[in-house]
Amino acid sequence: MKQISISETVLFYDTDCGGVVSNIAYLRFVERARSALFAELGMDLMSMNESQLFPVVIRTEIDYRFPARLGDEVKITATLVEVQKARVTCEFSLVVAQESGEAKQIAQAKQFVALVQMPSGRPRRTPEEWRSYT
Amino acid sequence: MKQISISETVLFYDTDCGGVVSNIAYLRFVERARSALFAELGMDLMSMNESQLFPVVIRTEIDYRFPARLGDEVKITATLVEVQKARVTCEFSLVVAQESGEAKQIAQAKQFVALVQMPSGRPRRTPEEWRSYT
Amino acid sequence: MKQISISETVLFYDTDCGGVVSNIAYLRFVERARSALFAELGMDLMSMNESQLFPVVIRTEIDYRFPARLGDEVKITATLVEVQKARVTCEFSLVVAQESGEAKQIAQAKQFVALVQMPSGRPRRTPEEWRSYT
Amino acid sequence: MKQISISETVLFYDTDCGGVVSNIAYLRFVERARSALFAELGMDLMSMNESQLFPVVIRTEIDYRFPARLGDEVKITATLVEVQKARVTCEFSLVVAQESGEAKQIAQAKQFVALVQMPSGRPRRTPEEWRSYT
Repeated sequence: MKQISISETVLFYDTDCGGVVSNIAYLRFVERARSALFAELGMDLMSMNESQLFPVVIRTEIDYRFPARLGDEVKITATLVEVQKARVTCEFSLVVAQESGEAKQIAQAKQFVALVQMPSGRPRRTPEEWRSYT
Repeated sequence: MKQISISETVLFYDTDCGGVVSNIAYLRFVERARSALFAELGMDLMSMNESQLFPVVIRTEIDYRFPARLGDEVKITATLVEVQKARVTCEFSLVVAQESGEAKQIAQAKQFVALVQMPSGRPRRTPEEWRSYT
Repeated sequence: MKQISISETVLFYDTDCGGVVSNIAYLRFVERARSALFAELGMDLMSMNESQLFPVVIRTEIDYRFPARLGDEVKITATLVEVQKARVTCEFSLVVAQESGEAKQIAQAKQFVALVQMPSGRPRRTPEEWRSYT
Repeated sequence: MKQISISETVLFYDTDCGGVVSNIAYLRFVERARSALFAELGMDLMSMNESQLFPVVIRTEIDYRFPARLGDEVKITATLVEVQKARVTCEFSLVVAQESGEAKQIAQAKQFVALVQMPSGRPRRTPEEWRSYT
């Protein structure tokens, strides 16, 4: 199984005037975790830059459970859960450690990702070896 | 039925180095359309600022169908499709007019939204009169 | 003189948990105004997409005077103030209409912009005819 | 002297369709470094959340020298260079390590920051002890 975790601090530009993290900011956290997961799969950003083969998000589902606040440390865990010919499925869990030490899940997300060759925009098959990762 | 449409131009900061609109930028477009829809429902941004009663997104689903590019005019239509006691459901369709004149759907999204009183963070019931809108 | 004005509403994602517009959001407003100004100069986004000739910001100065808030209508005026061989200078004024009807300047900015041919990254001369605009 | 450095990877949402880092993304990097610098000064994000005393940027100057690209590791160094009664001055240097091992400065910035008590919006004096830091 391929799984990685990263940690992000909630900054000013992540919050909105409701006092909590903007719903869009969570997706920046998810994107950072997905980049780390694909690096783990052999597709780091540098090599994408050269190959022009990019993972493209074709669907996102995200459930917002509890608000995070300025200064919170958010741990984002990304897991490769399914590999099909034309796409992969990744799951994300976002948790914040509370003062009690207990971790609280603040959001959970799922993304479906296809591989696309730029600049032609043609879809490419997922690598055979990824199938063994799930 | 409550439905509104807005139009947005794809700017530099909406695109990424794949040459197309970043998946996060679409959610800014959706947020602009949702703000316009809630203004239509009587909750404009100015009055939220005073009442501190905010619509909070509790779930987003978005399907990316075709990439938009720098300079594209994106028409975003937001529709209130369901009103329950504790939440409402909004649907969004994002289309770009092609050179042929035909409109091409580039993405479609659904959001579930609850009303939350800040700073207490307490959920509030949706207004009775909204039920007649769907 | 080339000068354009646009109007932007402050949305949730433009604000931060201090309750006011995030300093980065003002630069999105400036970018929208600059795009409109360059369209006026004959470099609209669509044609950039084809020519791959892009205006590139080489320096930004911005003074934040008063905070804007959720729901404020911000009027951004962009003016082409100087055209040199290798760069142009644009000035931006951001104002909000107050309840009294009076306009209050919330920020003012200046940007130096060069023209760059992608993907080579080579600088290009500013068009001769632009000199007559200042 | 107070000085800190952080490191950031250029992600998709930091780039634009010119293939390079969007000018706005650099300011997110600067904001992350400034947050780390103020934490060093005793104003971490968590304590701001409680005290509602916030550092507010009143002026930004940024010079863009070379473009960064997807996957680049950007090292951002923030230095407290001057402390006055009503404001402090911070300088930022953004560098990317090249293949040769040499560091290339891609941008440099300066920000003037005041301390503001929310929700009143009143300015507050900079702490006496900060003067010894420059």
